[in-house]
Amino acid sequence: MSLARVHNFSVSLDGFGTGEGLSLEAPFGHAGHRLHEWMFATRWGRSELLGQPGGSAGIDDALARKSTPGIGAEIMGAGKFGPPGWHEDPEWKGWWGPNPPFHTPTFILTHHRRPSIEMGGGTTFHFIDASPTDTLETARKAAGDQDVRIGGGPTMVRDFVTAGLVDHMHIVVVPILLGRGVRVWDGLEGLETGYDVETVSSPSGVTHVTFSRAAV
Amino acid sequence: MSLARVHNFSVSLDGFGTGEGLSLEAPFGHAGHRLHEWMFATRWGRSELLGQPGGSAGIDDALARKSTPGIGAEIMGAGKFGPPGWHEDPEWKGWWGPNPPFHTPTFILTHHRRPSIEMGGGTTFHFIDASPTDTLETARKAAGDQDVRIGGGPTMVRDFVTAGLVDHMHIVVVPILLGRGVRVWDGLEGLETGYDVETVSSPSGVTHVTFSRAAV
Repeated sequence: MSLARVHNFSVSLDGFGTGEGLSLEAPFGHAGHRLHEWMFATRWGRSELLGQPGGSAGIDDALARKSTPGIGAEIMGAGKFGPPGWHEDPEWKGWWGPNPPFHTPTFILTHHRRPSIEMGGGTTFHFIDASPTDTLETARKAAGDQDVRIGGGPTMVRDFVTAGLVDHMHIVVVPILLGRGVRVWDGLEGLETGYDVETVSSPSGVTHVTFSRAAV
Repeated sequence: MSLARVHNFSVSLDGFGTGEGLSLEAPFGHAGHRLHEWMFATRWGRSELLGQPGGSAGIDDALARKSTPGIGAEIMGAGKFGPPGWHEDPEWKGWWGPNPPFHTPTFILTHHRRPSIEMGGGTTFHFIDASPTDTLETARKAAGDQDVRIGGGPTMVRDFVTAGLVDHMHIVVVPILLGRGVRVWDGLEGLETGYDVETVSSPSGVTHVTFSRAAV
């Protein structure tokens, strides 16, 4: 069975998945890099995302690197692909340079469709304007028998969770208060009843919360 | 130095300190007892709050019982003292029966003042209508040289934190999504910068987050 999985999705203690004032210079707005420092400090993050040696090799690393195996496609929201207004730039190809860290077909949810873009390292960006259910079906076909990563940002994660499509969700609570931005948890009352929930804190200060469907 | 301390203050993963629809039958509204199950499962909670034997003796218990030593007075919000409208009942003396678990002078913030009530076990309820700063000063005098517990609910905790009065804050994040109720974290952007923050999860599933002032 092909699962829909959320990994390494960081939120502040007050529930914001990104800050306010997103721009080309500030992809996470006033949150800066604070939500993701834990990930860039891991051996996996340094190697895969920064191309650097070193990094921690404990619990943060172990959970971070679960994001890759078994994934055959990613779906992301328009807000993850670029700063507000990226669709007005025909040359925009994402934040990640010529070799994005996805290495699979990657579907961008947007009302502004454009031709697919083949990048290096196995990533192809497809632009799709469809419901969560239909988008997941399309991504599953592209993934073969493998799983689909639900890549964020917070609005699209919430939309997919609300639609009951997410089988596994790894949330990382960072002990900072952002105060403003985009909330992840709105409208998800009682979500825990459909999942097994496991919580573990790390010496880095973050807390990993994993929701997995009881049946999976 | 007399500190102002918050202990055992439970919030849902989406940041609600109490539910919606508070009443005599449902002191925490639709949240029911879910925010506090962790506490009633500890040896301290069973002994001090339920008068029963047994209970867990690990991390939840250790942190829960830090709430008592050194406390010389408590301040609580009107919403903790009784259900909505309790001030219209001249006989209302709180939820806790003749021997409330405070055992100190206990100040209830309310616009509806009434004469103090001496209860069993060392608890005296005083009714006060003043700012957080003035109330804390009054409570400190009553506490002698001891600390003052900031007892909740969420609105008064937020008010005292916002006023910069809280020296130590032990928050317990329960991995449920309440979806509605009273939020604790609103308006507290950047709070962590004034505190040392330590996070530890428990086998019970809750996560303890402790804010302590660097200078304390």
